[in-house]
Amino acid sequence: MERIKPRTLSGFMELLPGKQMQFERMVDILRTTYGLYGFAPLDTPAIEDAQILLAKGGGETEKQIYRFQKGDSDLALRFDLTVPLAKYVALHYNDLAFPFRRFQISKVYRGERAQRGRFREFYQADIDVIGDGKLDILNEAEIPAIIYRVFTGFGLSRFQIRVNNRKILNGFYAMQALQEQSGDVMRTVDKLEKIGPENVRKILTVDLSIPEEKADAVLKFISIQGTNAEVLTALEGYRGNNELFDKGLDELQAVTKNLSAFGVPEDNFAVDLTIARGLDYYTGTVYETTLLDHPEIGSVCSGGRYDDLAGYYTDRPLPGVGISIGLTRLFYVLDEQGLLNPALPSAPADVLILPMTEDLAPAISLAESLRSNGIRVQLYGEQKKFKQKMSYADKLGVPFVILLGEDELMQGKCTVKNMVSGQQVLLTAEEAADHIFAGKYAGPVILEK
Amino acid sequence: MERIKPRTLSGFMELLPGKQMQFERMVDILRTTYGLYGFAPLDTPAIEDAQILLAKGGGETEKQIYRFQKGDSDLALRFDLTVPLAKYVALHYNDLAFPFRRFQISKVYRGERAQRGRFREFYQADIDVIGDGKLDILNEAEIPAIIYRVFTGFGLSRFQIRVNNRKILNGFYAMQALQEQSGDVMRTVDKLEKIGPENVRKILTVDLSIPEEKADAVLKFISIQGTNAEVLTALEGYRGNNELFDKGLDELQAVTKNLSAFGVPEDNFAVDLTIARGLDYYTGTVYETTLLDHPEIGSVCSGGRYDDLAGYYTDRPLPGVGISIGLTRLFYVLDEQGLLNPALPSAPADVLILPMTEDLAPAISLAESLRSNGIRVQLYGEQKKFKQKMSYADKLGVPFVILLGEDELMQGKCTVKNMVSGQQVLLTAEEAADHIFAGKYAGPVILEK
Repeated sequence: MERIKPRTLSGFMELLPGKQMQFERMVDILRTTYGLYGFAPLDTPAIEDAQILLAKGGGETEKQIYRFQKGDSDLALRFDLTVPLAKYVALHYNDLAFPFRRFQISKVYRGERAQRGRFREFYQADIDVIGDGKLDILNEAEIPAIIYRVFTGFGLSRFQIRVNNRKILNGFYAMQALQEQSGDVMRTVDKLEKIGPENVRKILTVDLSIPEEKADAVLKFISIQGTNAEVLTALEGYRGNNELFDKGLDELQAVTKNLSAFGVPEDNFAVDLTIARGLDYYTGTVYETTLLDHPEIGSVCSGGRYDDLAGYYTDRPLPGVGISIGLTRLFYVLDEQGLLNPALPSAPADVLILPMTEDLAPAISLAESLRSNGIRVQLYGEQKKFKQKMSYADKLGVPFVILLGEDELMQGKCTVKNMVSGQQVLLTAEEAADHIFAGKYAGPVILEK
Repeated sequence: MERIKPRTLSGFMELLPGKQMQFERMVDILRTTYGLYGFAPLDTPAIEDAQILLAKGGGETEKQIYRFQKGDSDLALRFDLTVPLAKYVALHYNDLAFPFRRFQISKVYRGERAQRGRFREFYQADIDVIGDGKLDILNEAEIPAIIYRVFTGFGLSRFQIRVNNRKILNGFYAMQALQEQSGDVMRTVDKLEKIGPENVRKILTVDLSIPEEKADAVLKFISIQGTNAEVLTALEGYRGNNELFDKGLDELQAVTKNLSAFGVPEDNFAVDLTIARGLDYYTGTVYETTLLDHPEIGSVCSGGRYDDLAGYYTDRPLPGVGISIGLTRLFYVLDEQGLLNPALPSAPADVLILPMTEDLAPAISLAESLRSNGIRVQLYGEQKKFKQKMSYADKLGVPFVILLGEDELMQGKCTVKNMVSGQQVLLTAEEAADHIFAGKYAGPVILEK
């Protein structure tokens, strides 16, 4: 037979079983946490009509999209979960209750140039709350609580949820009569951390021809820092000059006001006036989340409030707020930085049962009884030497092995061996279940250094 | 703005939130059950190199596959989970421990002609055990236990796991010197239930020109029925005439021998000599699973033992055994037959909190405290009339609503309303968590009639 060399396409993540277990744990935490906040799981097709996916059209999206014909159909793979959500809400509008809260953790596809750490197929883990015409600010205020519970759920404490409000930015630029140039200004200001205030000032005054006093006003504004209370007080100084600004400030106050009721510590939260989230799409609160010890990773969870989810498909105004986690990239970076907890069990089973008797019925019954107690059991039936069986157990990384021979059977017990300590104990099936449960490692997915 | 009419492609399942919750429950049961048997979760890319996916080539597959170019790459969407598994095992051979047990619950793609109940994108829920050169029969014997636990987990009792062995069939046809025609004969025999023995006999003797006495021998053989013991006894009558047959019979005995230790009742299991599972791929035990009250659905879980998983990619012999559930179609049929339990909660939250005070902090704290107790909580912040809020709760289908006004706050309590009974009770946060937990419906996903 002619053989084809097996390979996986570059830019596509394919994990070994142990790593996959870690990844699944992160997905589980996301699913559970999103569920606790009343989001419904959603699962839209990966393939959509290309006309629909590209309704907005243009730019990078069009170049990166996987688009193809099948019969007469012009098809494409989704490049994010927001456009399919917009289609879903417009299509099923009459069957949904608003506010409509959904989460979706699914793969999306972008045919980008392959490079290290960039993926062509990757998971996004999104939540969105969609209102019918209106949406209360409480929904925006709740988002940091969700982000906080997700990342503490992962095992992290050294992260910061950064929040800003687009109305404050747009209002401020209007005050300075810079609204025409606000896009360019925001893009420049966004580079503050990278290039420093002097270079920002240079670009503003030279490249964008903004008068010096206005450039200074911009620099002064974006350098407002401190505790939430300090930033809000400084912003109060601008109140009364622009209606949009004042509305944005009210919203920001509403978002910060109940942080402690939401259980979000001040340490994990900051009002940050430099955050704009490029897209014109956002109209209110915007969010970014950074790992304090790994600023180079950039934002690991971003999003914001928007006014018009589905304008390409319906004339109903559908405002919303949402966040997205690029899970595949996050996992890749965490792994590369050595932040995935190596102590987490990576074996597909909690225990490997090695039957030592001709009659397999007792070993099978024991396996089924442990499974009924929630223990993940692999029954080993291969005809191998004892040493090979134990080395298989080692390679799998199972925390426990059960030996079941004539001696054990006569006593109605089994020998449970702890593969880390080497300790062996003789136990009944019920005791074995308790023993293995008690030995389960319950540490976090991510281990901060 | 020019608007595009939103639509979802035909042949692609897109569920409303309530139905999606039901679907997710089935996926959870599969994931948990597969996990209990020591299968590792796997997640391979949906896109593969077309050369690799089509290594086997030919036939329907090639016509149905979604294949497209991106840059210089010839790409295709997977049409099953077996070919990607073969690639995975061949590619990562050195990093895997054998027997390698994996499950994968993922979408696959087939551009079939659209028709009712046929899907172009659908979930398969597969398990496979792959051996390195050899694989013990115990792995084949364990499969019915897994199928049994999955389907009872769904809430079913009226189903039957039907088992046969390809070696018995091939051995029998060799005894009759019919091995040249065994493919045609098996395909004909497969129609027995549909067309009856007379018509099977006619096709065998007329269309296939098989001598009458041989046709009668075939019909006699496949009409062997009864309890497992009866069928095995009847098969013993053929022993000693063909080595392959005898080996198959030994295997079938090994598979049926420990059924009760595996916890599989005789009622849910049958040796059925008419099952062949078309593909030449299978070489030992083959499985089908039927719903006794819905034979028209056909097999809902099928698979078998094969000798050569990855011959297109590697010269290592990799035997295995696996089963597959076509989850999307199963869900569709169950729904259409009205078998999905309507009593299962379809709401994304266990409770909707309606704050009735200006200060939202107490409602927020209550929500977070309930969430920390594992209750799924939606906090309602929209400015609506009370009646509209309650009708939203109704539309969502939440089992409980919490009212939190000044009265409740003064007493450090909240009013918990049961939306089904209408009963209202005044409780502390902790009592409320217990009350809501106790009120959770724990019935099965599928309700037999």
